[in-house]
Amino acid sequence: MEHVGNGVRARDKRPVARRERAAGAKVDLGVLPRLLGYNLRRAHQGSWRTYVSFIGEGKIRPGLFSLLILTRSNPGIAQIELGTHLGVDKASIVALLDRLERAGLIERRRSTRDRRRQGIFLTEAGSSELEALMVQVRQLERHMASRFNKTELDQFLGFLQRMYS
Amino acid sequence: MEHVGNGVRARDKRPVARRERAAGAKVDLGVLPRLLGYNLRRAHQGSWRTYVSFIGEGKIRPGLFSLLILTRSNPGIAQIELGTHLGVDKASIVALLDRLERAGLIERRRSTRDRRRQGIFLTEAGSSELEALMVQVRQLERHMASRFNKTELDQFLGFLQRMYS
Repeated sequence: MEHVGNGVRARDKRPVARRERAAGAKVDLGVLPRLLGYNLRRAHQGSWRTYVSFIGEGKIRPGLFSLLILTRSNPGIAQIELGTHLGVDKASIVALLDRLERAGLIERRRSTRDRRRQGIFLTEAGSSELEALMVQVRQLERHMASRFNKTELDQFLGFLQRMYS
Repeated sequence: MEHVGNGVRARDKRPVARRERAAGAKVDLGVLPRLLGYNLRRAHQGSWRTYVSFIGEGKIRPGLFSLLILTRSNPGIAQIELGTHLGVDKASIVALLDRLERAGLIERRRSTRDRRRQGIFLTEAGSSELEALMVQVRQLERHMASRFNKTELDQFLGFLQRMYS
């Protein structure tokens, strides 16, 4: 693609006006369709939009949902472990937990096994909220997964996991 | 996974404390590894982090980079077309363009073909900036793509595109 910019610049100080495209001409995506970064971004946007259309924007967002799932599966989980598996730094985890605690969905408690440690636990309200949310998440996941057959879905999940594990 | 919450709740009003895990026990990710939403989010985070480590956080961000690429490939492109191919709403596109215009990288100009239309053009500075950025983006893309062989990469890109096209 570089030859366009370079070639024209050599002849003309204001190259772009000359090469103006016709209105409504097909958009040339250039190098974008071959870039992992661009495609991951668009795909993630797509999944976020599906989440919003099924669940709503003001509700529990995907990151909080994952946090609740991790806490349900690992009662007493440490903040730092949540950070690791959500891909979120410490300050952000603290902010997320503060929000969930204010909403009464999780609580921070001293460990019953080791009083020096503090762990995160779902409250009853958090557990019910998560249960209800899971029903919707299953629906939206089914919707997104319907674009793939079983083999493709397994491959796709494996490829995505290579990007962060 | 529901049987845990339900089963325990039937017997005990405060189930979670009882089931507290041992410190440092392996984290059970529950249903997360099978969810497209979770995996897309983590993979996108991974790609964003790679971008930052190669290019820096205060620099031109991935969305702006894509916008510059589209503008270079389509001189005079309309705002709405940029929005479509970046997956971004009108208000956000306007904000991005304002920022790029202040930085002297793009300009909004009346179309030379139709004075009623306004199009987006790269400036000379924008063109140089993009050229330099492309060198780094190629490096980081090579780095990310090294986790895949050619066939896998093509498949992966195709799967990602199914999520938004």
